[in-house]
Amino acid sequence: MKLTANALARMMDFSAVRTEVDEAEIRELVREATRRRCICVFPMPCYVPLVKQLLAGNPDVGIGGVVGFPSGAVSTATKVAEARQLLAEGATELDMVINVGMLRSGRHDYVAGDIRAVVETAAGTPVKVILEVHHLTDDQICRGSELCVRSGAAFVKTATGWTPTGATAHNVSLIKRTIGNAAAIKAAGGVRDLKTLLELYACGATRFGVSHVAGGRILDECAAQES
Amino acid sequence: MKLTANALARMMDFSAVRTEVDEAEIRELVREATRRRCICVFPMPCYVPLVKQLLAGNPDVGIGGVVGFPSGAVSTATKVAEARQLLAEGATELDMVINVGMLRSGRHDYVAGDIRAVVETAAGTPVKVILEVHHLTDDQICRGSELCVRSGAAFVKTATGWTPTGATAHNVSLIKRTIGNAAAIKAAGGVRDLKTLLELYACGATRFGVSHVAGGRILDECAAQES
Repeated sequence: MKLTANALARMMDFSAVRTEVDEAEIRELVREATRRRCICVFPMPCYVPLVKQLLAGNPDVGIGGVVGFPSGAVSTATKVAEARQLLAEGATELDMVINVGMLRSGRHDYVAGDIRAVVETAAGTPVKVILEVHHLTDDQICRGSELCVRSGAAFVKTATGWTPTGATAHNVSLIKRTIGNAAAIKAAGGVRDLKTLLELYACGATRFGVSHVAGGRILDECAAQES
Repeated sequence: MKLTANALARMMDFSAVRTEVDEAEIRELVREATRRRCICVFPMPCYVPLVKQLLAGNPDVGIGGVVGFPSGAVSTATKVAEARQLLAEGATELDMVINVGMLRSGRHDYVAGDIRAVVETAAGTPVKVILEVHHLTDDQICRGSELCVRSGAAFVKTATGWTPTGATAHNVSLIKRTIGNAAAIKAAGGVRDLKTLLELYACGATRFGVSHVAGGRILDECAAQES
């Protein structure tokens, strides 16, 4: 199946979620997201009000809020408070980080409860749950994926982009085999060219987290192949 | 001035604040902190209840809570909610991350208000403010340090430990020249041996953030020089 650049843009979240991102970069992010018509834009939480203002009601581009990002190791109460704040400020999607340390400790009930609390707070707004695969064994990736699905996640997502490794054909396939169609898959962390993206798409990912720079380059590559 | 290992331990915060830290590492952290009598132990927020239970009322070792860690780019409302939760769970010190992106954007009023909101929530519990120097120019380090002092920080702290560079003689001296005795300085990020620690102490730092592994090694080194 051949993806057009237009269709591909509607599978891409443009993000700028590093510590040092300043207002100028957020303006650039929103400009590119609007121009490219990507599906959603992800700033760090403190910039959600600015993004909402810059998008000025544009219905094409959603506003993403990250929760417990990037460590996942804040308390459930803090994740819930952060989710509530982001929704009040206009977030239309939430990407939360799973509690990686508790998952590695075998505290599956804690992990499930942590996700469920955010899903319930979101009250219908889709929640993607980031596994942070770099720190997990294959077994923990499977177990984490099951917990996401069981707790109401709309998507299982590979990585925050803060770790040395992220989405790979291996771990996207592993997640797909584990969850089937019970949730969608967002590939993030290391998606920097069209070839990688298409490989992950073939493995079952239908959403891609990219920087606006990589995203623009990938869409240009895709458009060049159409012509 | 010669520091004894006992005196040095009372200047050290032992921390385990990475994504992948599991319960076993927290138990080890608390064991080492107790054995070495360091001044305070810093887990990620989700482990504060476990740390409190493990310390079992031991008055020697404080419980540190990190706020908006490690990005600093969560909303002020989320930092306040997180601080309140940590204090309710027993935290005796708070280390918050400054809003680095807003500082880089020149939004000094925002940055000051963000710190002040946490300091007010802390209501007397000391708040250390992490600048995350890796992402700042010398000018921004000075400006950030001034904003910390003006907003009621007890300490200015160099780094989270999540960036490639952290405390150096250069930036600790720069902070010291900027704030004088208006607040104390905590050096963190890259403090892994006694020589580095003593150099930073000579520059004006009086608190040191270290992993329990590096902390133990430094205290052993110090004790060996006493005998």
